[in-house]
Amino acid sequence: MSDRPLLPLAGEPPRERADAARNRDALLCAARRLVAERGAADVTTEAVAEAAGVGKGTVFRRFGSREGLMAALLDTSEAAWQGEVLGGPPPLGPGAPPWERLEALGRTLVAKRLLHADLLRAAGRSGARSLAAYSFTAMHVQHLLRELEVEGDLLFLTTALLAPLEIPVLDALVHHDRDIPRVADGWVDLARRITRRPFPGDPSPTYS
Amino acid sequence: MSDRPLLPLAGEPPRERADAARNRDALLCAARRLVAERGAADVTTEAVAEAAGVGKGTVFRRFGSREGLMAALLDTSEAAWQGEVLGGPPPLGPGAPPWERLEALGRTLVAKRLLHADLLRAAGRSGARSLAAYSFTAMHVQHLLRELEVEGDLLFLTTALLAPLEIPVLDALVHHDRDIPRVADGWVDLARRITRRPFPGDPSPTYS
Repeated sequence: MSDRPLLPLAGEPPRERADAARNRDALLCAARRLVAERGAADVTTEAVAEAAGVGKGTVFRRFGSREGLMAALLDTSEAAWQGEVLGGPPPLGPGAPPWERLEALGRTLVAKRLLHADLLRAAGRSGARSLAAYSFTAMHVQHLLRELEVEGDLLFLTTALLAPLEIPVLDALVHHDRDIPRVADGWVDLARRITRRPFPGDPSPTYS
Repeated sequence: MSDRPLLPLAGEPPRERADAARNRDALLCAARRLVAERGAADVTTEAVAEAAGVGKGTVFRRFGSREGLMAALLDTSEAAWQGEVLGGPPPLGPGAPPWERLEALGRTLVAKRLLHADLLRAAGRSGARSLAAYSFTAMHVQHLLRELEVEGDLLFLTTALLAPLEIPVLDALVHHDRDIPRVADGWVDLARRITRRPFPGDPSPTYS
């Protein structure tokens, strides 16, 4: 940044803003990688700044505090996941059959919620559900249940599918010695029961 | 209480203690009735004292505060429900087939959790789950799932049955215009799906 002028010159692109955006991205990428490696609790602002190749002061200029950085990481992660659901590649994105989409939604949701639980703690916020994030997911699940022609109280069934992924419940499951893939398998099994899909081992019924 | 001596006389039964227990019971009964009628938020210590036929000071002597009274109401309600599950009449208590017991458990649990949500707010405590109460219920549900010969990850399925009844989730359902019987019906439908019981309207299958 040694070539940055003290003030932007008239007619030049807003260099300060471009630098700021680049630093912000670099910090978020570095933080995302470090959190995945060590968990949010063990990620210091110094480590993030070093990994991003910027000074520690830049973290505070861009995010206000370590908590602010973690909160920004959470928001971008949520936005990226919603983007993938709405327009990413199948099976999470459009184009796959509804059961495959539901399964992909559940598996990515388990991982995302555990990451967010970790980030929420580091951001100094409680594990209270974000209403906007919840509403997005619930609307999408209800849409898939309708596509699967599930009959019944779809609002209640959607709640039943999402409630085990609420952070306090998920935390308790994970403390019970269940790793992410096993929780995700449990969720897919639950979704199969709730949508009343046949199980792989079921005898094939013929209806009288 | 005008005949109560200032100090208990040697050899006499501990009158003060018996009076205290009687007042405590009368206050809990009155409070339970008023909370059922109006909701905990609209129950004052004055109203409870008047309904119990004691002075307002007695509420504070027995329970410390209005919050203490609400907390005591919550504890006695939980203990009474556990007593009914362990030794009360069927179908909630022992003796009924496991599906009938599970259904009775769910229906009483919905009502109990909503009452407790109300009492927790009045007791000035958060809606955080009581670990002891949760463990009791989870152990009992797992036992019934085993009796129903449900196959799969019983810990996960138990979590899935109980998570929609966690207070924040239940509160959101009730705010969504669902009354207690409808939430209870939704729960029984969910339990039917999770345990893979046939539905009343299902065609009878014959297996090839």
